[in-house]
Amino acid sequence: MPSKKNNYQKNYRRRNASRKKDSGTFQLPLKVSFLGGLNEIGKNMTLFEYDGDMVILDCGLSFPEPEMLGVDIVIPDFTYVERNKDRIKGIIITHGHEDHIGGLAYLLKIVNKPVYGTPLTIGLIKGKLEEHGLLSSAELHEIEAGDRFKLGKFDIEAIHVNHSIPDALAFALTTDVGTVIHSGDLKIDTTPVDGRMIDLARFAELGKEGVLCYFADSTNAVKPGYSASESSVGDSFDRLFKAAGDRRVIVATFASNIHRVQQVVNQAVATGRKVALSGRSMEHVMAVGQELGYLDVPDGLIIPLDQISQYPDDQLVLITTGSQGEPMSALSRMAFSDHRKVRVTPNDYVIISATAIPGNEKMVGRVVDELMKLGAEVVYERMYEIHVSGHANQEELKMMLGLIRPKYFVPVHGEQKHLQKHKELAEKMGIPSENIIITDIGRTIEISEDEMKVSGTVPAGRVFVDGIGVGDVGNVVMRDRKRLAEDGIITIVVAMDSASGEVVSGPDIITRGFVYVRESEDLIMDSQEAAMWAIENCLDNDIRDWATIKQRVRDEVSHVVYDKTKRSPMILPIIMEV
Amino acid sequence: MPSKKNNYQKNYRRRNASRKKDSGTFQLPLKVSFLGGLNEIGKNMTLFEYDGDMVILDCGLSFPEPEMLGVDIVIPDFTYVERNKDRIKGIIITHGHEDHIGGLAYLLKIVNKPVYGTPLTIGLIKGKLEEHGLLSSAELHEIEAGDRFKLGKFDIEAIHVNHSIPDALAFALTTDVGTVIHSGDLKIDTTPVDGRMIDLARFAELGKEGVLCYFADSTNAVKPGYSASESSVGDSFDRLFKAAGDRRVIVATFASNIHRVQQVVNQAVATGRKVALSGRSMEHVMAVGQELGYLDVPDGLIIPLDQISQYPDDQLVLITTGSQGEPMSALSRMAFSDHRKVRVTPNDYVIISATAIPGNEKMVGRVVDELMKLGAEVVYERMYEIHVSGHANQEELKMMLGLIRPKYFVPVHGEQKHLQKHKELAEKMGIPSENIIITDIGRTIEISEDEMKVSGTVPAGRVFVDGIGVGDVGNVVMRDRKRLAEDGIITIVVAMDSASGEVVSGPDIITRGFVYVRESEDLIMDSQEAAMWAIENCLDNDIRDWATIKQRVRDEVSHVVYDKTKRSPMILPIIMEV
Repeated sequence: MPSKKNNYQKNYRRRNASRKKDSGTFQLPLKVSFLGGLNEIGKNMTLFEYDGDMVILDCGLSFPEPEMLGVDIVIPDFTYVERNKDRIKGIIITHGHEDHIGGLAYLLKIVNKPVYGTPLTIGLIKGKLEEHGLLSSAELHEIEAGDRFKLGKFDIEAIHVNHSIPDALAFALTTDVGTVIHSGDLKIDTTPVDGRMIDLARFAELGKEGVLCYFADSTNAVKPGYSASESSVGDSFDRLFKAAGDRRVIVATFASNIHRVQQVVNQAVATGRKVALSGRSMEHVMAVGQELGYLDVPDGLIIPLDQISQYPDDQLVLITTGSQGEPMSALSRMAFSDHRKVRVTPNDYVIISATAIPGNEKMVGRVVDELMKLGAEVVYERMYEIHVSGHANQEELKMMLGLIRPKYFVPVHGEQKHLQKHKELAEKMGIPSENIIITDIGRTIEISEDEMKVSGTVPAGRVFVDGIGVGDVGNVVMRDRKRLAEDGIITIVVAMDSASGEVVSGPDIITRGFVYVRESEDLIMDSQEAAMWAIENCLDNDIRDWATIKQRVRDEVSHVVYDKTKRSPMILPIIMEV
Repeated sequence: MPSKKNNYQKNYRRRNASRKKDSGTFQLPLKVSFLGGLNEIGKNMTLFEYDGDMVILDCGLSFPEPEMLGVDIVIPDFTYVERNKDRIKGIIITHGHEDHIGGLAYLLKIVNKPVYGTPLTIGLIKGKLEEHGLLSSAELHEIEAGDRFKLGKFDIEAIHVNHSIPDALAFALTTDVGTVIHSGDLKIDTTPVDGRMIDLARFAELGKEGVLCYFADSTNAVKPGYSASESSVGDSFDRLFKAAGDRRVIVATFASNIHRVQQVVNQAVATGRKVALSGRSMEHVMAVGQELGYLDVPDGLIIPLDQISQYPDDQLVLITTGSQGEPMSALSRMAFSDHRKVRVTPNDYVIISATAIPGNEKMVGRVVDELMKLGAEVVYERMYEIHVSGHANQEELKMMLGLIRPKYFVPVHGEQKHLQKHKELAEKMGIPSENIIITDIGRTIEISEDEMKVSGTVPAGRVFVDGIGVGDVGNVVMRDRKRLAEDGIITIVVAMDSASGEVVSGPDIITRGFVYVRESEDLIMDSQEAAMWAIENCLDNDIRDWATIKQRVRDEVSHVVYDKTKRSPMILPIIMEV
């Protein structure tokens, strides 16, 4: 559609002509850097810089990949932020999902700057900050969709969008160079549960006024058509609760999907069932949601999980976490008969109201199987329409592009396949290929009225959080863990006389995670002999350098072990000087 | 359909009346035990016993779950087979996939009995046995679909079925108690690439004669409708090769899917491209397939991978392994620019002709992303019809049930969800619920003319193969590996005088996989002090028992470490006696 394309460009020039005159002939560019959310799902974090001022949009976490052994969560590398501490004017948060707020506590420990979000977002952030002992020191500002405020040289506007958590925002950021929009995570839902449709009118208005660049959620860019409305899930629940008959109903879903929970609550009310909650995050989000008025729950409907035995099955709904099959979650514990308060029976009707996130398919499958073995009926398949996504499909993405009509376009929030597909969609909508950049974390792009380009790099990467340690577990440790995980460790200890260099005691062999020792005595003896031989050989050749002796022991033992087992455990020779 | 049901039962009685008379009034039951393939995908192995004789059907492996650290493959527990060594009359193999033949080499080491399979199956088995040095001692028999032979008191009949590997079989096993059929893995393909449709006529004939029990593949029991024909993939290839234009084409698929490879070959011939192979198993299967006449490849079509640089991109197709994103596979190495002979460029058109097996989705996604980052176009989505399953969907399963009309039914090859759904389908086809058993590995069912019941148990489980060790890695080792993987290890070594019990040297702290030591000196010092304190405290209290001292050191150090890091590394105190 070349005519359309030209139109955009022409209109853009016309709309921005006056602005250019006002601010003189030379213009500073807007700089945008990404610390997460590109070529990955999660740890979304974007930095906007203009004329010395910086605004941070979102600060999320991601969950560790299977090869990140022992890592609890992954957060962005904050080096660049720390380096520019004094320039940060504020942190704006689109919504309260972990991949948008989960890194915030760690960020605020480094740079304590004001945080802006809707009441639910702030409510969920408060919970996190409390865990980290940061609640009193943090500066939290509640904002509403439609609010406009200044952060340094940025004019910020919050715009209501639909997503799988209530009260989500997109942001428009205006500087002298023009207006850019970041979508946050969004979908178009004409019948959301709270009745508040995405503010398409405002996006259209901004589009007419002229949007320089649009940064947009690509999560579902490979999915054709439109996503279904959240309220369609309510219809499915209606059907399924009927099918459940006089059995107990257990619904597993994401705690943060308050509208989903609301629909379960509605169904419970309609069918005369009490509701009990299982799972720490479910209880927490329900409490926050109710307190802030996001959830409409009749008094007395919710009963403590302890009291479920006082009600017959047909008067009960359990709402639980664990829709992703997470091993320690409430649903998982129910499935493996490990839940302290809930025992699953053939009189249970389980609805898993979620889709497995890539990587979790097998865990979810296992939970389903175990529940079925206990005799429960489990409804988990896509065909039952028990879940809708919170992200826009292709037609919605195209509609947003058609309303906003940006000059430049940067697909964000997605893996390469999503970003590329989103680029294709934008091209179909008339944005010239050269006005679209697929970029990566650690890259800075510069946007001015006449140009968008990749202009440099900033430090970015994955920081591992393990226990309370942030970043103290790096590649060396991870490599060691991988090796330990694969084949275990053989420790060889020998005590040597510091004066004569003679062996005083040992070598002793201690293994962990290698073989079942009682059944492998020969192998242990062989290893011991190999170690002794290596030491004696060194001493005979007048080698007294302990690093060399240790290396020889390691080589010799690993050779023997590999030869006999085809395994490569870590070999740790220790020489004690006595 | 109660009329139908009654009909089955009536016919069955009529058909079997004569047989009963012949064999007298008392009848021994047929016993069937499962060592794998139930409540799991993989390591299929079924034992049939009648009047002291045993026949083994298939002996597969499964791949380790993520929590089975360092395990290479998983095979069935052969205890029961070993115990009944002398009763085994033979091993019949349905087809040459790993989950049906991968445990055979390990089984033959314990019980060297004759093996029966079609030429391709035997050809693939030979490759495995050669690796294990068992080729000369094994007794391998090539059979063809339609063959009948006796194994002890069993009359065996091989029946041709369609699957994602050529020359697959189902087996009918007849004893005095009647005929039972095991489906192996099957689908109904009216237009398979080799033109040999599943022998539905024979199944129908057996059904008319009367089938006592049917054991049937449940893998796709949750999928509605019919599976698509393998040859439909050829049409997609035709379309996609056109779309590739003058780019190089890279097709990733399962090596064993010889018909898929044949269709790529056909397309290469049609478009004037040479074919090069990448991946050890692809080369192996192609060699076996060509040698045995399963593949039709014109002379000179296949060129060594070394020579691809001599041809322009539009004259090349690479066929590669790695369609599951396996980290060390050829496609994965290409994606991560780690392949010695193939460099992926924007002039590559990659077709991933497979669906990710549950658990592999993320790995495949990563490979796709990396290929895209190199500029290649990647076709991987279901919508392109580049893959069809080798397993029957619901309508096919129902058709098989309708033809075979068994008195009893046992769904096999599947997780609980698949088995339960298959049971539902059988009920819809008129088999009474009480004539269907969903069972598990380690269970024996007894089938006689008037009854099918669970009658006992046999030892069954998962045996881990790690390197050349079979079963020497058990739960203790696995638990240690898990702990090592999560948080690493702290070794504390101290040398003590064997006479006085005084500390002569140490305690020294050595960690692996715990923290980056240079940045955690304080923590190491604290641990050292805690260890010293624990030892001195013991000595002061006249505790000289080294087990107790070690325990105190472990407690003290783990306390300090957890307190400061919230991590629980393995703590290994070692006392050297000097």
